[in-house]
Amino acid sequence: MPPGTLEEDMTGKNRVVILGSGFGGLYAAKALKRAPVEVTVVDRRNFHLFQPLLYQVATGSLSPGEISAPIRAVLNKQKHTRVLLEEAVDLDPHAKIVYLRDGGQIPYDSLIVATGSQSSYFGNDKWREWAPSLKSVEDATAIRHKILYAFEAAERAHNNPEERRAWLTFVIVGAGPTGVELAGALGEIAHETLKNDFRYIKPEEAQILVLDGSPRVLPTYPEDLSKHAERALLKLHVRVRSHVKVIEVDGYGVDFEFQHNGLTQKGRIPCRTVIWAAGVATTEFGHVLARRTGMNGDRQGRIKVLPDLTIPNYPDIYVIGDQALVLNQQGKPLPGVAQVAMQEGSYAAHAIVKRLKGHADLPPFKYFDKGDLAVIGRGSAVANVFGFHLWGLPAWLIWLFIHLMYIVEFQNRILVFVQWAFFYVTFHRGARLITGHAAADVVVGTKPLKNPEED
Amino acid sequence: MPPGTLEEDMTGKNRVVILGSGFGGLYAAKALKRAPVEVTVVDRRNFHLFQPLLYQVATGSLSPGEISAPIRAVLNKQKHTRVLLEEAVDLDPHAKIVYLRDGGQIPYDSLIVATGSQSSYFGNDKWREWAPSLKSVEDATAIRHKILYAFEAAERAHNNPEERRAWLTFVIVGAGPTGVELAGALGEIAHETLKNDFRYIKPEEAQILVLDGSPRVLPTYPEDLSKHAERALLKLHVRVRSHVKVIEVDGYGVDFEFQHNGLTQKGRIPCRTVIWAAGVATTEFGHVLARRTGMNGDRQGRIKVLPDLTIPNYPDIYVIGDQALVLNQQGKPLPGVAQVAMQEGSYAAHAIVKRLKGHADLPPFKYFDKGDLAVIGRGSAVANVFGFHLWGLPAWLIWLFIHLMYIVEFQNRILVFVQWAFFYVTFHRGARLITGHAAADVVVGTKPLKNPEED
Repeated sequence: MPPGTLEEDMTGKNRVVILGSGFGGLYAAKALKRAPVEVTVVDRRNFHLFQPLLYQVATGSLSPGEISAPIRAVLNKQKHTRVLLEEAVDLDPHAKIVYLRDGGQIPYDSLIVATGSQSSYFGNDKWREWAPSLKSVEDATAIRHKILYAFEAAERAHNNPEERRAWLTFVIVGAGPTGVELAGALGEIAHETLKNDFRYIKPEEAQILVLDGSPRVLPTYPEDLSKHAERALLKLHVRVRSHVKVIEVDGYGVDFEFQHNGLTQKGRIPCRTVIWAAGVATTEFGHVLARRTGMNGDRQGRIKVLPDLTIPNYPDIYVIGDQALVLNQQGKPLPGVAQVAMQEGSYAAHAIVKRLKGHADLPPFKYFDKGDLAVIGRGSAVANVFGFHLWGLPAWLIWLFIHLMYIVEFQNRILVFVQWAFFYVTFHRGARLITGHAAADVVVGTKPLKNPEED
Repeated sequence: MPPGTLEEDMTGKNRVVILGSGFGGLYAAKALKRAPVEVTVVDRRNFHLFQPLLYQVATGSLSPGEISAPIRAVLNKQKHTRVLLEEAVDLDPHAKIVYLRDGGQIPYDSLIVATGSQSSYFGNDKWREWAPSLKSVEDATAIRHKILYAFEAAERAHNNPEERRAWLTFVIVGAGPTGVELAGALGEIAHETLKNDFRYIKPEEAQILVLDGSPRVLPTYPEDLSKHAERALLKLHVRVRSHVKVIEVDGYGVDFEFQHNGLTQKGRIPCRTVIWAAGVATTEFGHVLARRTGMNGDRQGRIKVLPDLTIPNYPDIYVIGDQALVLNQQGKPLPGVAQVAMQEGSYAAHAIVKRLKGHADLPPFKYFDKGDLAVIGRGSAVANVFGFHLWGLPAWLIWLFIHLMYIVEFQNRILVFVQWAFFYVTFHRGARLITGHAAADVVVGTKPLKNPEED
């Protein structure tokens, strides 16, 4: 038997395979803790990432290790659960087998697909080179590199005003929660953290722009909260440009189109740092899943599941998290946030157990919406909690509390708290490292400044 | 004037240029805080690294950000000090100019060379591919990747005993402090941290071997402490092989020669993880410095300096830290440790100021040896402090105290303390991340296991 085939270890009909250990996959695995099943969790990474705080890694407040928890450590008390550091590349939904990249095969009785999403450049994948997005730990350290290096390069180019200005201009594409959080943190970096660090430039010269095609920041939030968010951003010297569509990105700037009231204007922002916070799309495995089950994904590649989160005709395949298209009572898709994925993960786990016990009639999945939260800066956030609209310090305290509670592991919680306590008193950022062996590959567009005589 | 030339900003004859911001360079810069000079610190990295704790990053206890401090933040109160994120590539000691990689030039009146050392493979640079060494943050995360991945691969190869054993064999080349500290941490990982994390392998099956050509571990320490260290390692199931010379390293093992009492034996250890902790050599700039000043480096490329740490005939060039060959009263070279570099840095700074004030007669540099410390594991270290030999818990407490005190920044100190407190109670390691975009490039020798039918 080839080493990849894992049949040998699994008995009975209770083999649950979970693909992905983000919020959806991990909560499904945890919900199966006492279930009479054998669980296999497959992930390409050996750690669960607390993605809502990834922007703090990208902006130098936290270290990657502080928002990550080794999957094995989280699940090591569940003796019926094994973890595989591998990638699922294909699926036979009839034979009920998942194929792994190394040629291994995992048979399943129930499958939970929680493979998440990746960033999307809307067909302009070459922009990725100039405008990194924020999905993985590597993305976050690459963005941190780009941001910190920009100030260094500006200092070096201080006597070339044009060059200096381009290095000190930061464009964030996308005004959703990630874009807003990144922009707020960048405002604090420029105006507080780096205040005294340079000799030839003033970091507060930095221009931070958020571009979005929609008419307001946080377009999925209630309108009054969008206004509060925009006002809070402005206090941090972040300017929001609505109705703006990006049409080209390169190493020296962004071309845009401004469309409003029938008016169309084109323009260019010279800048050396662009961060992409605009779109998501399904992963490779998501495409495979759709193909193998004869489904059509929506525009983002999400698969529309039945009320019990399974795929039509495949009652043993559950799809959860960013990979699933689930509609709420108003017929609108649930957003791709941790809360949704966690609830779906728990639901899928309970559904599997119920069916094992012979309960055929399952109440449909119902999302319990606790609200939305986006943080802008120190003591500043907007929140829509159980229908109450909050902003400023109260919203921020709720954000702080919820995030501290949810971070998966106890130790990380203390650490993050210490970092934050320190940071919010001093604005000092503890993880301001420019790292990466192949700096030139990561920080595209940062080649040494040319001698002006060469120009 | 090309943007690289920095003459414009400097006046008078008091321009001090410091190359490198390790312990030597940083302490020189800090010692110049109130001096009537203008200081330029040049470093390729934007952060000072607390290198004595780098092995804790490599073994997943700490995150890189926790043992690093942004150079600008450390020096931002010194308004006469500027920091350049750049690399010195050449020197004209007659014209007194340092040349930077980007073509820039920095004139100096006094130069402090503190460019440190890099790892040396004694002419076998191709071993670097298979046996990473521990000098930079990137090295540390690559080693962490290799170690953690090895356990994952062993789990995956569990039904191939030979393969499993090779993945679970860890060879550390070099029994100096770094080798001993890495080995001790590896012992704890295998026997404590990962204890419950796997389903098919027992992490405690891991074999951890330390190879060294010398007759004992910590060869520069007093003999009784070497014995204590070896005993402490054995308790962590680490075996030391003395009188062993490595003659070949590849992705599947290490070839060695055992020489003792006229006996020579050859052998091979099949293993997938080799860590190089054996030798150091001068950096590129060290070679340039020797060439330009007509000096010959010693075997490691160190330059033998005068008693005032300057180069013969170049009273304005100070060489400190790993780059300098300084002899103690017994005529033996001072070791390449933080303590020596820090004292030399302060001395060079004071010498510059004294000479500026016209004091020509300078007492020679004298190293105040506070002792040596190497940690083996939780509650276990060896120390030679002011001639007192300590081991076990007392030595470890001294180690803990000294390291907490020295970590450059206040915040990091708290954080490291919290991590440690947690770790020493639970053996939990908070930073167990397998990261890196090009995993295949970093973790060499970890290609997917072959199907045995192919063999």
